[in-house]
Amino acid sequence: MATTSLVEQLADEVSSGSRRAVSQALSLIESTKPQDVDSADALLDILLLRQAPTNTRRIGITGAPGVGKSTMLERFGLELINSGHRVAILPVDPSSKKTGGSILGDKVRMPQLSLHNEAFIRPSPSKATMGGTTATTSDAIVVCEAAGFDTVIVETVGVGQSETEAADMVDLFMLLVMPQSGDDMQGMKRGIMEVADAIVITKSDLSLEAARRTQAMYTSAVRLMQPSKPQWETPVVHASATVDDGLHDVMSLVEKFFVSERAAAINNVRKEQRIAWFDDLVRRAVVSAVRNNPTVDQFIAEQIDLVASGRVTPSTAVQRCMRSVSITVKEQL
Amino acid sequence: MATTSLVEQLADEVSSGSRRAVSQALSLIESTKPQDVDSADALLDILLLRQAPTNTRRIGITGAPGVGKSTMLERFGLELINSGHRVAILPVDPSSKKTGGSILGDKVRMPQLSLHNEAFIRPSPSKATMGGTTATTSDAIVVCEAAGFDTVIVETVGVGQSETEAADMVDLFMLLVMPQSGDDMQGMKRGIMEVADAIVITKSDLSLEAARRTQAMYTSAVRLMQPSKPQWETPVVHASATVDDGLHDVMSLVEKFFVSERAAAINNVRKEQRIAWFDDLVRRAVVSAVRNNPTVDQFIAEQIDLVASGRVTPSTAVQRCMRSVSITVKEQL
Repeated sequence: MATTSLVEQLADEVSSGSRRAVSQALSLIESTKPQDVDSADALLDILLLRQAPTNTRRIGITGAPGVGKSTMLERFGLELINSGHRVAILPVDPSSKKTGGSILGDKVRMPQLSLHNEAFIRPSPSKATMGGTTATTSDAIVVCEAAGFDTVIVETVGVGQSETEAADMVDLFMLLVMPQSGDDMQGMKRGIMEVADAIVITKSDLSLEAARRTQAMYTSAVRLMQPSKPQWETPVVHASATVDDGLHDVMSLVEKFFVSERAAAINNVRKEQRIAWFDDLVRRAVVSAVRNNPTVDQFIAEQIDLVASGRVTPSTAVQRCMRSVSITVKEQL
Repeated sequence: MATTSLVEQLADEVSSGSRRAVSQALSLIESTKPQDVDSADALLDILLLRQAPTNTRRIGITGAPGVGKSTMLERFGLELINSGHRVAILPVDPSSKKTGGSILGDKVRMPQLSLHNEAFIRPSPSKATMGGTTATTSDAIVVCEAAGFDTVIVETVGVGQSETEAADMVDLFMLLVMPQSGDDMQGMKRGIMEVADAIVITKSDLSLEAARRTQAMYTSAVRLMQPSKPQWETPVVHASATVDDGLHDVMSLVEKFFVSERAAAINNVRKEQRIAWFDDLVRRAVVSAVRNNPTVDQFIAEQIDLVASGRVTPSTAVQRCMRSVSITVKEQL
């Protein structure tokens, strides 16, 4: 993929909703080859210029392994399609290096949804490049929306740094937790409860009583914290994807979240998300440019040793670094 | 303060425990004059080389205005002194620009403690320089410990970014909250509950029942989260500084936290805190060096506008920035 016309053709095919084109576009975005990176940028530029800010919905779903994400996604996704939506699901697996996704895995995980015409499932690899998971997945959201998928669900597995990143990519971030007794409490990962816009206690069919008790505990806990979004009270519901308990509650909390009054607010949040993400990427890029100088990197490593052992304060060490390094910035505009 | 001998003399006086010297050293650390910055670095170097890693205790206390921090600090500080400790209190006020501190204010806030020979109170200004509050306050901790204050208490007012920074500066971070009824819940600031090593419900004298109810709510909430430190269960106690209720509980949770088995762990945590802080300072310094070029800053600002309006993705904008800017790093070792 090299010439502009090929990129434009791909953009046209994506806009027409071609699944094959969406797959191809996502592969381009995931690629680290320099010419592909350029093509991906050009493609995104075209798609963004075309795409009006529509009423798309970006939903994040996270939860520990075994919490029942797949079953919930399958039911929830089909329910959304029944309500007239087109649904793209982007599972992000930070432990997986493979691109293109494990199609068989998703066929097993979401048997009906993975075959459905109005659904598109594509695992998002976690690239160890600048921007990592977020850059790839956020760009993938843009492609899916351009192809007419009005609902994009980003699924994360609840380990690593990826959850708070995922929360920053979506409008509505749902946390799935299992019913817990007082004894088997594992404790949520740091920071995750505070970015959750909704909490779903799964597997209520196993014990409705345990689900309700857990629901009460989380309800009480979220009331102690500031809401994840202004004018929004984090709902805590229980649900079972196997016996349909509470699926209606999940659907209606989603509808409530995306009511039209919130549309403007959502656009503002997305704007802030983009700026924050750009800011973060610039910082990473600049720091990595500096540390790419082996002598400088060595000098910084030595200062880290001094700081670690407590012989030099961090502020002194930084002043030494900045005195010992000359950063020249030239614009090549 | 210019010559090495003067800095050495000041270091000697600090080490001897002179309150006047500690005050002078802290003023030096707070100063932004270039020659003072150099002297402060030299002073810290000397103090750090001398100071063996002793059994000092760094305690953070935070809470919203009106929660009763002053009353609690007064009683808690006197109690520590009665147990044979020497206590330095560093109130950090991010809204205050003045240096040297409002001595009168602290005399009113902590009448007995502010006059006590074994106590030292010095408000830490929030400098708008690289590293901000953290750099100044962390260096101030080093000076106070060098002067023989084995317990340093960093007090923050529970607004702004300062709490999580404060939590990263201390060993034990205590969150003070007021008794709450179900109706008047304000919600804790994001992230703060998860870095709290202990939660103290204040003003239990107003209503012991409300204090106990609030205690139960927070106990339940912290059990849903991962502990702030490995092998540590965040205690939730209620206390009143006016009728001495629960002060014993606060003292014994502090003793429990600092039991000798945890000493090694605390040193490791401090080491990680120093490295994380150095890393953060280096990032800020490098980014600010790049953005000090007006043309580059302008170019980045333009990209931010494009990103904000959604016409360019953050990843594309960053690639443009890095292509348009040449960062040359030269070592001057």
